[in-house]
Amino acid sequence: MTARNRQWLLKSRPAHALSLEHFAYREQAFQAPHLDAGQVLVRNLAFSCAPTIRNWMNAADRSYRAPIGIGEPIFGPACAQVVRSEHPRFAPGSLLIGVSRWEDYSVIEPDQAFAPVLSVPEGMMPTDALGLYGLNSLTAYFGLLKIGRPQPGETVVISAAAGAVGSMVVQLAKLNGCRAIGIAGGRQKCTWLLQACRADGAIDYKSDDVAAALTGLAPHGVNVFFDNVGGELLQILVEHMAVHGRIVVCGQVSAYDSDLPAPGPRDMMRVVYGRLSIQGFVLGDFLDEADAARADLVRWFGEGKLQRHEDVRAGFDVLPTAFLELFSGGNRGALLVTIAAGA
Amino acid sequence: MTARNRQWLLKSRPAHALSLEHFAYREQAFQAPHLDAGQVLVRNLAFSCAPTIRNWMNAADRSYRAPIGIGEPIFGPACAQVVRSEHPRFAPGSLLIGVSRWEDYSVIEPDQAFAPVLSVPEGMMPTDALGLYGLNSLTAYFGLLKIGRPQPGETVVISAAAGAVGSMVVQLAKLNGCRAIGIAGGRQKCTWLLQACRADGAIDYKSDDVAAALTGLAPHGVNVFFDNVGGELLQILVEHMAVHGRIVVCGQVSAYDSDLPAPGPRDMMRVVYGRLSIQGFVLGDFLDEADAARADLVRWFGEGKLQRHEDVRAGFDVLPTAFLELFSGGNRGALLVTIAAGA
Repeated sequence: MTARNRQWLLKSRPAHALSLEHFAYREQAFQAPHLDAGQVLVRNLAFSCAPTIRNWMNAADRSYRAPIGIGEPIFGPACAQVVRSEHPRFAPGSLLIGVSRWEDYSVIEPDQAFAPVLSVPEGMMPTDALGLYGLNSLTAYFGLLKIGRPQPGETVVISAAAGAVGSMVVQLAKLNGCRAIGIAGGRQKCTWLLQACRADGAIDYKSDDVAAALTGLAPHGVNVFFDNVGGELLQILVEHMAVHGRIVVCGQVSAYDSDLPAPGPRDMMRVVYGRLSIQGFVLGDFLDEADAARADLVRWFGEGKLQRHEDVRAGFDVLPTAFLELFSGGNRGALLVTIAAGA
Repeated sequence: MTARNRQWLLKSRPAHALSLEHFAYREQAFQAPHLDAGQVLVRNLAFSCAPTIRNWMNAADRSYRAPIGIGEPIFGPACAQVVRSEHPRFAPGSLLIGVSRWEDYSVIEPDQAFAPVLSVPEGMMPTDALGLYGLNSLTAYFGLLKIGRPQPGETVVISAAAGAVGSMVVQLAKLNGCRAIGIAGGRQKCTWLLQACRADGAIDYKSDDVAAALTGLAPHGVNVFFDNVGGELLQILVEHMAVHGRIVVCGQVSAYDSDLPAPGPRDMMRVVYGRLSIQGFVLGDFLDEADAARADLVRWFGEGKLQRHEDVRAGFDVLPTAFLELFSGGNRGALLVTIAAGA
């Protein structure tokens, strides 16, 4: 095998806002590597632009795991085809999804990976496997249904609601009989949440008074807050939770593009008197249930209860610019980039 | 009835440290009041000095409920005897525990009270009903066993461990097969935790490096943190929790004596990656189970599995000075003040 291997590398560690200068492009002849037991050589077909990638660019003490090294290819969720395999669960020719690298060919170790690696069911399109039924949607599914445990009639508020995870949470909340209120940046996203995602309310954190809007939209308090953003929004939400409210902590995007972490509630006595629970989770804890969850999502989509919301770009070259759109505010739903024919 | 009614009133609202100047003494002839349906006239027999009383002295926006009004008798947990009753569950002559007022005679409304009012089982001593089997012990019981859910072999850390709630949590953690590590202020309290409460470890937050001590005593992380204190201790503990650790938020004593609230974790991504849960609770949510819990405590005490740790003072006059000892650091276990013969 003497193919080319294109790569997007982390050129330098961003201290604040990410920009194109933090990425470096490299192209090399691809040398087929020796595989140890448990390793899989894959050809990456498509990548998902997930905000958490930005977090992996920060230093290790922030991200709780080895960060992306300077000069290394960027980590990112991908759909990939198995080229060679020393892992019993992943056969050559089959598709998988998991965190891979921004390059054509990668060696991954499913049992050692810090995020789940899942086989793609027969017949599922790579972009569906990565988007509609991908890690973002599974994160929404488990975070809302297993951690948030919303009951019909309850009010669910979602931050970064127009993103890939958030827009799926909005839909799943509606599907479970809840009132869903999305928080997003900009009128266009809010209109999209109301119309395309059928949210019951939408709050534009850039121009609305979030606290006042919450008082109006959720006068009896918020039962479940699905938090992708953290920071000031989390602090406002803590003061608007109903008694026994559940805060599901999925991500803290507000801190990824900063050198400061996102802090928790300002006044923990609110947590006591409100009997609030604040719970973090990662998708990796729910691997055993992932196939059943995807089957639910496939069924709901087939029944017309879920809409597909994705923005698919083509070309390895556009990966960094597409990723940067997550932070400049244009993105709605899943943002995917295909890099190979057949994706 | 023309008895005297002695009272300790809140003279002014403390902005920072509480002192005797914030209390005023008053003595009046007692006028037997008319009782509305649901009200009970009680004669207070003994009071429990609970740190949360300090919180009720703060302004309403801090304490989430109507605070003690200026010129009103101090609220406080008490064991009291029913004098007259317009409530079907509380018969004249019987004993109850609940939040009453620092005075001889009080009218309480069990169904409207912001904290539980419980009948005292026949034959139980007033000081036992208020201390060993009282609201503090029930708070420890439900907070640890229902919210923290410790498994045998897990490590439980308790802040304000030498207090009435904390020392009971230490004992209940041991009784459930856990390693119990108490955090308290001063060598004497730490020695007491190790010897009298049989803690597996004790950390003196006033002179030890808490983070280093935790690393030594809980090298695999803390599974359950029972937090009575908040502030800096909570922030340190968040960084020492084991994966899937549970933080039970019972109180935030560090903030009661201050005009600033106690904030939550510094970095919420710790909560995500550690899959931590942070849950507040109040005893009032567990009223239906209170009798069963007291039966457990009575049985465990009878079997020698629980020790009684209480400091009983006598005299209405000493109430404020006894209460102030909670904050000056001398107290170990429950601190009770009897004010009437028969208590």
